[in-house]
Amino acid sequence: MKILILNGPNLNLLGVREPSIYGNFPFSDYLEQLRKAYPAIEIDYFQSNAEGALIDKLHEAGFDRDGIILNPGGYTHTSVALRDAVSAIRTPVIEVHISNIAGREDFRRVSLTAPVCRGTITGFGLNSYRLAIEAFLLESLK
Amino acid sequence: MKILILNGPNLNLLGVREPSIYGNFPFSDYLEQLRKAYPAIEIDYFQSNAEGALIDKLHEAGFDRDGIILNPGGYTHTSVALRDAVSAIRTPVIEVHISNIAGREDFRRVSLTAPVCRGTITGFGLNSYRLAIEAFLLESLK
Amino acid sequence: MKILILNGPNLNLLGVREPSIYGNFPFSDYLEQLRKAYPAIEIDYFQSNAEGALIDKLHEAGFDRDGIILNPGGYTHTSVALRDAVSAIRTPVIEVHISNIAGREDFRRVSLTAPVCRGTITGFGLNSYRLAIEAFLLESLK
Amino acid sequence: MKILILNGPNLNLLGVREPSIYGNFPFSDYLEQLRKAYPAIEIDYFQSNAEGALIDKLHEAGFDRDGIILNPGGYTHTSVALRDAVSAIRTPVIEVHISNIAGREDFRRVSLTAPVCRGTITGFGLNSYRLAIEAFLLESLK
Amino acid sequence: MKILILNGPNLNLLGVREPSIYGNFPFSDYLEQLRKAYPAIEIDYFQSNAEGALIDKLHEAGFDRDGIILNPGGYTHTSVALRDAVSAIRTPVIEVHISNIAGREDFRRVSLTAPVCRGTITGFGLNSYRLAIEAFLLESLK
Amino acid sequence: MKILILNGPNLNLLGVREPSIYGNFPFSDYLEQLRKAYPAIEIDYFQSNAEGALIDKLHEAGFDRDGIILNPGGYTHTSVALRDAVSAIRTPVIEVHISNIAGREDFRRVSLTAPVCRGTITGFGLNSYRLAIEAFLLESLK
Amino acid sequence: MKILILNGPNLNLLGVREPSIYGNFPFSDYLEQLRKAYPAIEIDYFQSNAEGALIDKLHEAGFDRDGIILNPGGYTHTSVALRDAVSAIRTPVIEVHISNIAGREDFRRVSLTAPVCRGTITGFGLNSYRLAIEAFLLESLK
Amino acid sequence: MKILILNGPNLNLLGVREPSIYGNFPFSDYLEQLRKAYPAIEIDYFQSNAEGALIDKLHEAGFDRDGIILNPGGYTHTSVALRDAVSAIRTPVIEVHISNIAGREDFRRVSLTAPVCRGTITGFGLNSYRLAIEAFLLESLK
Amino acid sequence: MKILILNGPNLNLLGVREPSIYGNFPFSDYLEQLRKAYPAIEIDYFQSNAEGALIDKLHEAGFDRDGIILNPGGYTHTSVALRDAVSAIRTPVIEVHISNIAGREDFRRVSLTAPVCRGTITGFGLNSYRLAIEAFLLESLK
Amino acid sequence: MKILILNGPNLNLLGVREPSIYGNFPFSDYLEQLRKAYPAIEIDYFQSNAEGALIDKLHEAGFDRDGIILNPGGYTHTSVALRDAVSAIRTPVIEVHISNIAGREDFRRVSLTAPVCRGTITGFGLNSYRLAIEAFLLESLK
Amino acid sequence: MKILILNGPNLNLLGVREPSIYGNFPFSDYLEQLRKAYPAIEIDYFQSNAEGALIDKLHEAGFDRDGIILNPGGYTHTSVALRDAVSAIRTPVIEVHISNIAGREDFRRVSLTAPVCRGTITGFGLNSYRLAIEAFLLESLK
Amino acid sequence: MKILILNGPNLNLLGVREPSIYGNFPFSDYLEQLRKAYPAIEIDYFQSNAEGALIDKLHEAGFDRDGIILNPGGYTHTSVALRDAVSAIRTPVIEVHISNIAGREDFRRVSLTAPVCRGTITGFGLNSYRLAIEAFLLESLK
Repeated sequence: MKILILNGPNLNLLGVREPSIYGNFPFSDYLEQLRKAYPAIEIDYFQSNAEGALIDKLHEAGFDRDGIILNPGGYTHTSVALRDAVSAIRTPVIEVHISNIAGREDFRRVSLTAPVCRGTITGFGLNSYRLAIEAFLLESLK
Repeated sequence: MKILILNGPNLNLLGVREPSIYGNFPFSDYLEQLRKAYPAIEIDYFQSNAEGALIDKLHEAGFDRDGIILNPGGYTHTSVALRDAVSAIRTPVIEVHISNIAGREDFRRVSLTAPVCRGTITGFGLNSYRLAIEAFLLESLK
Repeated sequence: MKILILNGPNLNLLGVREPSIYGNFPFSDYLEQLRKAYPAIEIDYFQSNAEGALIDKLHEAGFDRDGIILNPGGYTHTSVALRDAVSAIRTPVIEVHISNIAGREDFRRVSLTAPVCRGTITGFGLNSYRLAIEAFLLESLK
Repeated sequence: MKILILNGPNLNLLGVREPSIYGNFPFSDYLEQLRKAYPAIEIDYFQSNAEGALIDKLHEAGFDRDGIILNPGGYTHTSVALRDAVSAIRTPVIEVHISNIAGREDFRRVSLTAPVCRGTITGFGLNSYRLAIEAFLLESLK
Repeated sequence: MKILILNGPNLNLLGVREPSIYGNFPFSDYLEQLRKAYPAIEIDYFQSNAEGALIDKLHEAGFDRDGIILNPGGYTHTSVALRDAVSAIRTPVIEVHISNIAGREDFRRVSLTAPVCRGTITGFGLNSYRLAIEAFLLESLK
Repeated sequence: MKILILNGPNLNLLGVREPSIYGNFPFSDYLEQLRKAYPAIEIDYFQSNAEGALIDKLHEAGFDRDGIILNPGGYTHTSVALRDAVSAIRTPVIEVHISNIAGREDFRRVSLTAPVCRGTITGFGLNSYRLAIEAFLLESLK
Repeated sequence: MKILILNGPNLNLLGVREPSIYGNFPFSDYLEQLRKAYPAIEIDYFQSNAEGALIDKLHEAGFDRDGIILNPGGYTHTSVALRDAVSAIRTPVIEVHISNIAGREDFRRVSLTAPVCRGTITGFGLNSYRLAIEAFLLESLK
Repeated sequence: MKILILNGPNLNLLGVREPSIYGNFPFSDYLEQLRKAYPAIEIDYFQSNAEGALIDKLHEAGFDRDGIILNPGGYTHTSVALRDAVSAIRTPVIEVHISNIAGREDFRRVSLTAPVCRGTITGFGLNSYRLAIEAFLLESLK
Repeated sequence: MKILILNGPNLNLLGVREPSIYGNFPFSDYLEQLRKAYPAIEIDYFQSNAEGALIDKLHEAGFDRDGIILNPGGYTHTSVALRDAVSAIRTPVIEVHISNIAGREDFRRVSLTAPVCRGTITGFGLNSYRLAIEAFLLESLK
Repeated sequence: MKILILNGPNLNLLGVREPSIYGNFPFSDYLEQLRKAYPAIEIDYFQSNAEGALIDKLHEAGFDRDGIILNPGGYTHTSVALRDAVSAIRTPVIEVHISNIAGREDFRRVSLTAPVCRGTITGFGLNSYRLAIEAFLLESLK
Repeated sequence: MKILILNGPNLNLLGVREPSIYGNFPFSDYLEQLRKAYPAIEIDYFQSNAEGALIDKLHEAGFDRDGIILNPGGYTHTSVALRDAVSAIRTPVIEVHISNIAGREDFRRVSLTAPVCRGTITGFGLNSYRLAIEAFLLESLK
Repeated sequence: MKILILNGPNLNLLGVREPSIYGNFPFSDYLEQLRKAYPAIEIDYFQSNAEGALIDKLHEAGFDRDGIILNPGGYTHTSVALRDAVSAIRTPVIEVHISNIAGREDFRRVSLTAPVCRGTITGFGLNSYRLAIEAFLLESLK
């Protein structure tokens, strides 16, 4: 099973800043943990602050991976282009968020990307990513 | 670990109707599978079509369980009272949905209960419940 | 032909209060008249002020009656759960209202349940129910 | 008893086009059926695609008929002028719709004319007209 | 003088939880104080988390008490049915809130029930109930 | 000086119906009074319930009269086409209303035609027309 | 006949500034003209930039004059207090505006005061005041 | 105990006008009654139609009284400045209204000042002021 | 190939008025040019200021032409009836506008008819019509 | 160079209250500092809680000063009259705010006065005023 | 004549995915056809998923080409920056869309870029580009 | 003191285009002036049309500079991602705009980034940048 984790804007700062919201753990360390926990799964990782680069990556990975875990960050609420990219590809996408965005500012209440994703997992800190892997595993068992 | 699964209105019809949206599997069968899969966890189940009964149950279970998995069904979008019940109790609550509600009618886009839950898991069919159990397990490891 | 008349909140007070809006005729008397007028039709009656009880009844009656006449009262404008119950059952449902709700307060202008009903009949006093029976009879002739 | 059936825009195409929404029965055939079914009622018919012609007809018929059955078609949602015409006349008006407009596009959810009509009957195909006649008969019995 | 105090959802938890918002005093203790302070007034008490049960109680008490003190809790902002029940009864109703709801979340800013109540008293902690009794006493002096 | 009075939908019923809102004086009688009061002014009159006929008349009169007094009736709030006609002609147009539309239903609060008229005179009964003539006279004195 | 002309904020600058919108004629000169043109009418004048002073003046003049001509300036769109003052007094009030406010910024489109005035006259430059006097004269002839 | 009663715009007309809404009792008479009923409380009174004067008075009284009873009248719904004044002072403020503003026009539904007051008492006629005094007494007993 | 050009309200004034927006060329001259440029295409022309006449013409032409070029003028933004007429016919319709309506007033931003047309061509002056003919030619080549 | 600093409602309390938002420095002390820092500039100061007095001052100073620094306080978001005053005068106005109003309540997000000011400086505490002086100096150098 | 075709996000996938919406023809093949059909026109092509790259390209091409054909894809509805880029350059821009975006999701109904383009061509599949070239040719003949 | 000036989309065209809005001075010349005027301050400059590149730069500069002056251009109103970047870094950010955006199109009225900046300076042409430097200097003196 091949999975891409795709992180959007500002997620490169995880572990560096705002630990009260995003935890104090660099994503690279977490990624290592994930790979150890799921040795049978090939987990790629890509992060960009650029909307266009995220779309490029979705296009590239969207036809040969078994699943994409997407944290669109701030683009969640503003990017029709990212939504269109998720619709255009074949690989199923799960949207994850570290914090519980429903409980934050009003402009974070509606996700433009969620309607075209397979499902969403929100609010479990870095474990949101791990639960998304579990979701892909459960789907593959069906 | 003691977990309550609390299902809201119309979820008693699961497996009976609208398999294209909700799957064709009665919840009781699924519950049995869950209990087998997690023998160490004590899983209670309660379903009601009544907003008041769901609130009563949250009050009852909200001070001694380790987690509550809540699918508020149609009350998700309309019940301030249910939201207040979730805020009032001590047990953490995870909101789950079987279908990807973000992709359905406009009035299903905003959840009144999600802001006061620990997190949400949406769109994975009955597996949404299983992922919620995984989420409680991961939280307990921290 | 078996039909259920299902009355929502406050409709138990019909004939008791606010005759200028709702007429001065208890529903039980009206029901007797209806049964006399349509002796070949088996007409059940259920009223509840509880959203959950109305959903329960829809589930119970929704797979073996030939028609349900639903006056959702105040839940018309607020209950996604009731709407979901109407969608989930097999029996066709006709929504009726005694008063012309289009001409009252703004918050009564949109019905959440109407979109999933077969049709609506509004504003004819208690005759709205009789017209709904006529509607089921006309449908059955097709 | 003298009744006018007044059909608004595009209803001249009934039976010709879009049978999945509007049925495949020309209105003239249906009118003949209605007249046979209610021999004691004098039923006039007028259809126009022009808002002004519909208002003219309401003015003309609005002081001597016993009832008007109005299907305002697309003008339902946009015509303050038609609404004012209904308020200005003495004959009671029942608004009917062939399809269940509540379940269609958002801009069809609110009727400008319904608040000033006696009542509305929506969603029963051509039978909506027949039910309106029944409604006038029931009113006349009171 | 006979007065009913009618408490809506989650108010059974008063004194148990969220003392910063709702105070740390069980309602039963407070009730005892009230009854001592007003020995000439017969004070009934009913609490329910169920919208339907609150409506049932309003119907039952709405024709023979001298006043009803209603704290609709979360139903304040969502229940047309409860509003209709208040309109349908004869006993005057005063709406009370423990916290100053105007200063909380946006969805708590508009009350559906207040327009049909005699008046509202908001933000004085449990004293809101006592002030409502005073209000009924002042009204009875007129 | 040549002035056209152009009355929109339902204004043919003036004096016939709803005297509490529109007065009980037929417009023809009023017109005669106006002509007597202003013998030096040539006053034409046209009324139609049809939006298109009103636009046709504006085009016809819009290049050779000295002023047009327009009461757009129900089209005031809905007709972009009428507004465009007023913009397209050369003759100045004054919008008049018999009743004070600001104090009626919400949908009568905004006029689509007023922004492209010279001015508006509202709420003086039939005298609104006379004041408009006075306004044209005052303009011609400048 | 005794009439008060009441001018709101910034109208003291008439003739001094922005002649393209408000004309280049001081109001005092205009007032003199008006008094000459209507020698039989006693015309008072008051201008203030203060909402409270305008309300005070309405209270003072609102029980003994035959008419008040009010140009509420910028308070037109924001002052509930001024509206309440107009409702509270007995003298009829006509709202006037020099410019055609319907054709300016969006926030000038709705008048809070107009619904409680007798009528409105808008867009005729200083002649709006004169037309209001004519309107009071016509009313007094009835 | 020293309390200031601060009345906003148009409340100087109490007892003079609109008795159906505001009662037919001059406020001065009522004030005398209040002072007699509460001889131990020093009750000041100030009324102004001017927003600025109300703010000045709040500043002046806001640091040495034990309580302020504020009826902001029409400024309730429009004055951010008044709200800021209430926040800026130290004395607790109770907002009162004579009529039940929730049941009047839409623009009266939201109070800008209420969120920063201690609480609100609405709809009890002049007794709203007396209940506010009771509220301050109850607070002082705590 | 048979094409109908159908022009809505005020387009009869083309070339006469407002050349800065609509050009200074009568439509009849342009039509002649078009017919010369496309001798193999039979081009009909119809213009009306009446919504009903435009609907009649769509019905008449909507089953035997190869294409209809519709400039709905002011009805673009207000006519559900015209939209329904476009949906009801079989001939494909292209919506054209002479000016770039996206850059004009807010109420011109949404077209009710465009969603049921084949496509739209906007902003190219009279050339918008010619481009629509080209579009039909390109479609016919497929 | 002559500059007026014009402070709106509640700004007289600066240094007295809410130091966390507005700093703990009386404005008079700050003014002295400013005058010392810019000895060549004549700096006037006026503060009022009254909208009308602020408008009066703008009129008085608006034709002979070189610049006005306006902090409209709570009137920023509600006063069309103040905005009109700024438009009506000749002296350029800079709007300043002590706190970063963009980050506070929703109703503080839009300024009615800013569109007609030269520019705005927001969020720098009392230094906002000093920066406005710098802005006028920079403008005068051009 | 030199024309740039500028394609926004996801348009690189044309011909690869979602043929029901976007056709099954790679854009490169189509480009070749266009170049053959218009040998006298120099047609450049650039596609990017990145908003910034599209803006860069508009800047680069916006001062020396004769026309730009822009399909902004998902940025159509969200990019103020792209709109500003179109306004800032000298070359005229035509906005094209392959599908009829007016008939798709609500958030696709308003284009931020269209108001600053010369015109728009929408809904003709890949022929939308060809029609844009025709439009530039027609403009150049004027 | 080390300050970064960060310019967003289209600001590379300053001095080249639209001098009426943005002035006719290339930013590089202005930068040189600034550096001469503040020799003790190290001023970096970065401009990009790409949202992602601006975020990257904020991350890079956001932990070691003393201040960032950000002109987000068109991203001001649409970029949650940029806002999140400003919140995530440690260096204080001042938002500047060359034109007075409050007085332009409606969609430019609300800034998504301003709430998380230290303050904003808007409308002073290129001097907005200089005033921001002054603001940082004043802050550093505290």
